[in-house]
Amino acid sequence: MGVTLEELARILGGRLDGPSPGPLVSGIASISEAMAGQVTFLTETKNVQKRHQELAKTKASGVIASENAGSLPLPSIRFPSAYHGFVKALEYFHPKDSLVPGIHPTAFVHEDAIVDPTAMIGPLAVVEAEAQIGPGARIDAQVFIGKHSRVGAASHLYPHVTLREECMIGENSIVHSGAVLGSDGFGFHSTDRGHEKIPQIGIVEIGNNVEIGANVTIDRATMGKTIVGDGTKIDNLVHLAHNVRVGRNCLIVAQVGISGSTTLEDQVTLAGQVGTAGHVTIGKGTTVAARGVVTQDVPPNQVVSGFPLKPHSEEKRIMVAMRKLPELVKAVRRIEKELASLRKPNE
Amino acid sequence: MGVTLEELARILGGRLDGPSPGPLVSGIASISEAMAGQVTFLTETKNVQKRHQELAKTKASGVIASENAGSLPLPSIRFPSAYHGFVKALEYFHPKDSLVPGIHPTAFVHEDAIVDPTAMIGPLAVVEAEAQIGPGARIDAQVFIGKHSRVGAASHLYPHVTLREECMIGENSIVHSGAVLGSDGFGFHSTDRGHEKIPQIGIVEIGNNVEIGANVTIDRATMGKTIVGDGTKIDNLVHLAHNVRVGRNCLIVAQVGISGSTTLEDQVTLAGQVGTAGHVTIGKGTTVAARGVVTQDVPPNQVVSGFPLKPHSEEKRIMVAMRKLPELVKAVRRIEKELASLRKPNE
Amino acid sequence: MGVTLEELARILGGRLDGPSPGPLVSGIASISEAMAGQVTFLTETKNVQKRHQELAKTKASGVIASENAGSLPLPSIRFPSAYHGFVKALEYFHPKDSLVPGIHPTAFVHEDAIVDPTAMIGPLAVVEAEAQIGPGARIDAQVFIGKHSRVGAASHLYPHVTLREECMIGENSIVHSGAVLGSDGFGFHSTDRGHEKIPQIGIVEIGNNVEIGANVTIDRATMGKTIVGDGTKIDNLVHLAHNVRVGRNCLIVAQVGISGSTTLEDQVTLAGQVGTAGHVTIGKGTTVAARGVVTQDVPPNQVVSGFPLKPHSEEKRIMVAMRKLPELVKAVRRIEKELASLRKPNE
Repeated sequence: MGVTLEELARILGGRLDGPSPGPLVSGIASISEAMAGQVTFLTETKNVQKRHQELAKTKASGVIASENAGSLPLPSIRFPSAYHGFVKALEYFHPKDSLVPGIHPTAFVHEDAIVDPTAMIGPLAVVEAEAQIGPGARIDAQVFIGKHSRVGAASHLYPHVTLREECMIGENSIVHSGAVLGSDGFGFHSTDRGHEKIPQIGIVEIGNNVEIGANVTIDRATMGKTIVGDGTKIDNLVHLAHNVRVGRNCLIVAQVGISGSTTLEDQVTLAGQVGTAGHVTIGKGTTVAARGVVTQDVPPNQVVSGFPLKPHSEEKRIMVAMRKLPELVKAVRRIEKELASLRKPNE
Repeated sequence: MGVTLEELARILGGRLDGPSPGPLVSGIASISEAMAGQVTFLTETKNVQKRHQELAKTKASGVIASENAGSLPLPSIRFPSAYHGFVKALEYFHPKDSLVPGIHPTAFVHEDAIVDPTAMIGPLAVVEAEAQIGPGARIDAQVFIGKHSRVGAASHLYPHVTLREECMIGENSIVHSGAVLGSDGFGFHSTDRGHEKIPQIGIVEIGNNVEIGANVTIDRATMGKTIVGDGTKIDNLVHLAHNVRVGRNCLIVAQVGISGSTTLEDQVTLAGQVGTAGHVTIGKGTTVAARGVVTQDVPPNQVVSGFPLKPHSEEKRIMVAMRKLPELVKAVRRIEKELASLRKPNE
Repeated sequence: MGVTLEELARILGGRLDGPSPGPLVSGIASISEAMAGQVTFLTETKNVQKRHQELAKTKASGVIASENAGSLPLPSIRFPSAYHGFVKALEYFHPKDSLVPGIHPTAFVHEDAIVDPTAMIGPLAVVEAEAQIGPGARIDAQVFIGKHSRVGAASHLYPHVTLREECMIGENSIVHSGAVLGSDGFGFHSTDRGHEKIPQIGIVEIGNNVEIGANVTIDRATMGKTIVGDGTKIDNLVHLAHNVRVGRNCLIVAQVGISGSTTLEDQVTLAGQVGTAGHVTIGKGTTVAARGVVTQDVPPNQVVSGFPLKPHSEEKRIMVAMRKLPELVKAVRRIEKELASLRKPNE
């Protein structure tokens, strides 16, 4: 069983660098965990030297590497980008479950829902009236699709996703288990008598090629739309409040919270546990480092961190200086005493 | 289709300020997004001037405003509170789905559960033995209601809510999708051999007019009750640990975490991503700014922030001073050197 | 109804200290909330004196205490560890629902799944093909068990848990509602054209005697395993990224986020809202205080806090010094001015 390295190179679209047809391989694993009969991979990375050392000791039968990775101690399949070859190999050795079109007999699909015949609706899923499920879409077990909501072609909602009414997901998007899209925004009119609920009548609109992590919450807009743009990837337990607009190809790492009406332009990266105030704009291509707090607009193409936010390099200098602070307090006291004694002779 | 402004004023209980009967309107939208045939609104806000400028350019056919908003460039409906009029108009143009009483045939309702005939139980919901669902309550698709739990009149649990056994929700309360009420508190007796589980035998008790966000977790008490008081509103992904007591009309913003046995008195506001230690009390009317960490009791009516917590104005001064810290370190070094050289002549 | 203290001491394995057979008791409550006919408990704690004062006023009919708690003002049942006696009493007065083996008729269990006849599958649960459910395991209502996944003997999955395909849970473990185990790791290969998904083909492996809180997310490994070791307890809303390895008997408090490929050795404690970078190791027995951020390896047996992480005692000194910072800035300005004026006479 397995394929020769030569055959694998052909399938993946790479170039075999080594004796042809090469050994049989039947799986992929990391450099340290791979066994004979598996390929491993050498991705572009910071620790190139360390990886080359590990490679000398690997038990793998072949390695996926980039064209410019230099000479390697075992047969390799070369790609312009090793990462791309790696992804191809993962997909080859672990093909996705093929979708079995049709509606599971235990699902509840409203008679007025429109489910494409090539879509799959899993066990005990609910699809409400006038919802639309596109071609090749996969609605897993126990998912909820509200009234008038739409899921585009080839999108995949994992078990226990909630898509509230009137909301839209584009094509080729992935929503992981437990995510809630379209919950009411946190909007109240506070008076002396309490907090009066402001009805949240807007929607959520998710673009194409978006990925949304497990247990993420994305609130519907008060009016209008909460938007996640094409190609954006959102990690687990992230919160997007009402009327947030996230641009294209953004990365939002786990446990980030974005307050109401804030805008992320395209290609913004928010690292883990970042928080933002409401009604601010983060410019295109900007990165906010982990745990940063965004309280005002940030221009494009910055790398910022801290609370309040500042250039990342400045934040790092402050962090270093902080550790000197207790000593600094003492030094200033000492100086003040000395100055006082210097002063006396002049009196 | 639509209603005249005059008719709308009558329905909402406001006063028409403009020619009668005024234009026909059929919807509501923000000042910048409204089109002809829609009303917009001018709420009490900080940027009054900016809003008035926007209003001069709006395409809306009318505006909801407060009695003291001054003269406006288009017909208006006036209210003592513009916000109140805005809420009324939202409710008028987007009425809630009317509840269809009855138990969906795909739901599982235990024969010993007591479901009021005016309540609604959605598809694939579960209501366990001796649970009670009050009049007009709405239990959406795939909700779980545990044994002996109770949901009061007119409360609404959205899809995928989990209400564990023995817990109680009052009247007119809302629980959003994915929220878990009544999970075990995080209680262990740690010894050299490991962490022994302390059974969590208490309950969760949610008051009336409460709103609980998506994917919130509220743990049951070790013994006794974890309590959320009437009128309190909780945003998404908030965590309340065992035996927490939250007073009335509090606001708890997204991703806040409250540790065990902590008490919030009435009208406390915790902004986003705040954390609290266990066994502390936050006094009535106090606000903790975003990201603050509460490690000890806070008196009533404070505005506090930071870690450790301090008056918000002090925290802001410290934040400003922080940016001077690296320079300060250098300045003190320079001073010490200069002092040393001053000292020498005296030697 | 109830049992005498003498009888209760016998059942729990403690020693009655007081007149025999003592009063009848039928429940357990805290010192301040207990009523006549209940026992209370005096656990080892910091505020021993305060507890003794409270005990003088309790209405309880008896108290569970440790052998070395000294003389007490009411009949007691003594144990080497009061906490252990307390846990025993909780279990006695509030026995768990006994498990009713069998598959609920509304559940969907794939014909190729293997469910032990002594296991319980609740209403509207889903168990996919070739999943295995061990003896005495309890799969509650609306749980999802993916293909080939395994749940060990006597483990308990609460309503709305998602266990994705190929993942494993050991024996005697507990997973609370809304937790998602096995969601895809957040792995992308970013290029100018966007973020290419790296297939996540690994699994999640949970050990024995583990407890996982509500709405926790644990991502499957890119390749290989994300691991949670025996005896580890995880609180609500925690995020473990792909390829994280958590050792045995760790405690991970609410809202912690652990980035990819990070390792926690045994007996590590992460307090609330801690975050970690990826690819770091936290040594055995180390504690990270609340809100700390781990950006590099931490040796064993440390108590660390802050961002960047430092010894907890140092962090506390810095926190104290921070409040002096604005004054310090002024002092240094004053000193510089004075030095300048001292300098002049020398010119």
